[in-house]
Amino acid sequence: MLDVIRELAKESPSKIVMVVLDGVGGLPREVNGETELASARTPNLDALARESQLGQVELVGAGITPGSGPGHLSLFGYDPLHYTVGRGALSAVGIGVKLAAGDVAVRGNFATLAAGRVIEDRRAGRPSNEENVRVVGKLGAAISELDGTKVEIYTESEHRFVVVFRSAGTPLGANVSDVDPQATGVPPLTARGNDNVSERTANLVNAFVARAEDVLRDEAQINGVLFRGYSDVPHFPNFPEVFRLRSACIASYPMYKGLASLVGMDVLDVPGEEDALQEKVQTLRDHWDRYDFFYLHIKKTDSTGEDGDFEEKVHKIELFDELLPQILELGPDVLALVGDHSTPSTLLTHSWHPVPLLIKSDWGRKDLAVRYTEEEAQKGSLGLRRGTDVMPLLMANALKLQKYGA
Amino acid sequence: MLDVIRELAKESPSKIVMVVLDGVGGLPREVNGETELASARTPNLDALARESQLGQVELVGAGITPGSGPGHLSLFGYDPLHYTVGRGALSAVGIGVKLAAGDVAVRGNFATLAAGRVIEDRRAGRPSNEENVRVVGKLGAAISELDGTKVEIYTESEHRFVVVFRSAGTPLGANVSDVDPQATGVPPLTARGNDNVSERTANLVNAFVARAEDVLRDEAQINGVLFRGYSDVPHFPNFPEVFRLRSACIASYPMYKGLASLVGMDVLDVPGEEDALQEKVQTLRDHWDRYDFFYLHIKKTDSTGEDGDFEEKVHKIELFDELLPQILELGPDVLALVGDHSTPSTLLTHSWHPVPLLIKSDWGRKDLAVRYTEEEAQKGSLGLRRGTDVMPLLMANALKLQKYGA
Repeated sequence: MLDVIRELAKESPSKIVMVVLDGVGGLPREVNGETELASARTPNLDALARESQLGQVELVGAGITPGSGPGHLSLFGYDPLHYTVGRGALSAVGIGVKLAAGDVAVRGNFATLAAGRVIEDRRAGRPSNEENVRVVGKLGAAISELDGTKVEIYTESEHRFVVVFRSAGTPLGANVSDVDPQATGVPPLTARGNDNVSERTANLVNAFVARAEDVLRDEAQINGVLFRGYSDVPHFPNFPEVFRLRSACIASYPMYKGLASLVGMDVLDVPGEEDALQEKVQTLRDHWDRYDFFYLHIKKTDSTGEDGDFEEKVHKIELFDELLPQILELGPDVLALVGDHSTPSTLLTHSWHPVPLLIKSDWGRKDLAVRYTEEEAQKGSLGLRRGTDVMPLLMANALKLQKYGA
Repeated sequence: MLDVIRELAKESPSKIVMVVLDGVGGLPREVNGETELASARTPNLDALARESQLGQVELVGAGITPGSGPGHLSLFGYDPLHYTVGRGALSAVGIGVKLAAGDVAVRGNFATLAAGRVIEDRRAGRPSNEENVRVVGKLGAAISELDGTKVEIYTESEHRFVVVFRSAGTPLGANVSDVDPQATGVPPLTARGNDNVSERTANLVNAFVARAEDVLRDEAQINGVLFRGYSDVPHFPNFPEVFRLRSACIASYPMYKGLASLVGMDVLDVPGEEDALQEKVQTLRDHWDRYDFFYLHIKKTDSTGEDGDFEEKVHKIELFDELLPQILELGPDVLALVGDHSTPSTLLTHSWHPVPLLIKSDWGRKDLAVRYTEEEAQKGSLGLRRGTDVMPLLMANALKLQKYGA
């Protein structure tokens, strides 16, 4: 489908804003009750919904709960079953580390080793983030280079860290076997490369393991490292090229900036703390003339769902409702509201439930849905669709797609 | 998709019951009239529907009328365009004959041959089932073994029968050309094998044809046999392994037990005659603790449709409604009601119309559909879907699927 779009897409002055309300879909607290969206007081969203098209979107497939990576890739038009991001690369992206072609990112766990290098705890007693930062600092000071290859080590969270091996001209391969045996009572495995370029990576990994154990030998709990999930930088078709859109990402959290960057969007600086709603709209305003497509990410609708805080998720939805007139004021030709997955506060995690999709453009039909809620979206004219349908629909509504065939 | 599910599926104590109401979808008797489901008095189904999610399911594809095989495979999560059961194997399954690896089942027609072995009637005047049984008995008595290979012959119905060649260690191939020329006025064709293992089968088939014509030479009408549709046992991914479900089939008729057995479910013994509704629920109750997934098959909603008996189909739906509280009483975490195809009594046969799907779980949204009928299902939150979506949805609702990607 991307190839078809690439062939049909045309440049035009119209502007598209895609607002991703992270994890916005929810569930009722009791049978046939109201969801977070339905409970929220949202006069601006309601007015918008009355003149928009609604529908429901499944990001990956029926029953499949999307991670943030697959959820976003689907919204960006990339089939998430085909375009995958490896664990190592996604971890790097998630902490804001850029990978270049030929680099390899590796996902690591701190572990506790007993005598004879036998693994006692694969997660080193789940250390605090502060403890992780301390140990990463110690390793980073000791290991900045191995066999002429630049090595970087970053904290992810708790027992998790990321190592990036920077290729110096010669590309590194990611086809390397795990160090983590996924079992206790046995020593870490020796990494092996399954092709020539990956053998070089495997040697680096094994050298890192040995050096790290040496550096950490006096630590009580964190005295070993395990690796699993090696990835090179994923090669995706370039979003601005495929859709012929000068494309910008407006997000605060590293994961979302990283995903947008992976597909080739410009990542705009957003000042301010946390979700920085007002600053995001200001960034949108400041760059309005320079781009055709804005991906605007709102995080807190997801975090409050993951916290299991129904009322607070309702509140975050209401905060977005207050922000909406400022976005509409800019006069986007096409405005879309959608989520990258549902995060019902009753489940405290991502879920498989479809997310409501709203598309506002001058080219919509009368629609039975009158609010941006899960229930109303069921009545919408856009039906129940895959996430990969969203970008083609936005392009069409912006009159940016030529006719297919004569 | 099965590969994705295999990767995401996790074991958990939750229990899923999938009730397949065979051929349950129907049509109205006059324009804008009520279907069998809508005409039925179903207080228990109605109450269930009010707190469930509904939708519509197409088992194979738009406009495609599914046979029982493809319909069920789709519900079990297997794309019926990819996973096919050969005619011979399906016939064997349909009469309750088990195939082992290396065996070949062949679908046969009784024919009337004139002088010079010229085919006069490809269906031997459509004999009665009794006549079929008599001739099959005669053949069975004369041909139990050919060239050291065990041969079994079974009545299917009218002019149709099934021959099973049992591999004795050396596997038989099913890549064999037809004996049936699908024309009259010409003699039967000589079967040819398209590879080494199939050549052995072709020799057996040709020997069978010759022996049968010899045994039947004094018969007036049934004096020849034609073969078309050779199959070895299909190799499907194992359902209990893919979904990580201890899986049981509760059905009365051989075809459904056979299909469940083909995908690796345990087939439970159901005592009683015909549809044996009460015995099926008792079987469910007796095995409740031992399985995570139950496929419960109800047959009469289909047979009454095939008989063209609208009122009787309504009655069978009402009988199921009376049974429903006993199933609910067991407290399944997820209960699904669905059909393997529609069988409108006005059409007297399977049809392409979508079947209504109902899913009851703790994780549903408010849904506009308030009855388990074709019309209400159109308003349901589950939308119009492929049959292969059903299993992933049930797994998700049972919280048995991990997140896809990070």
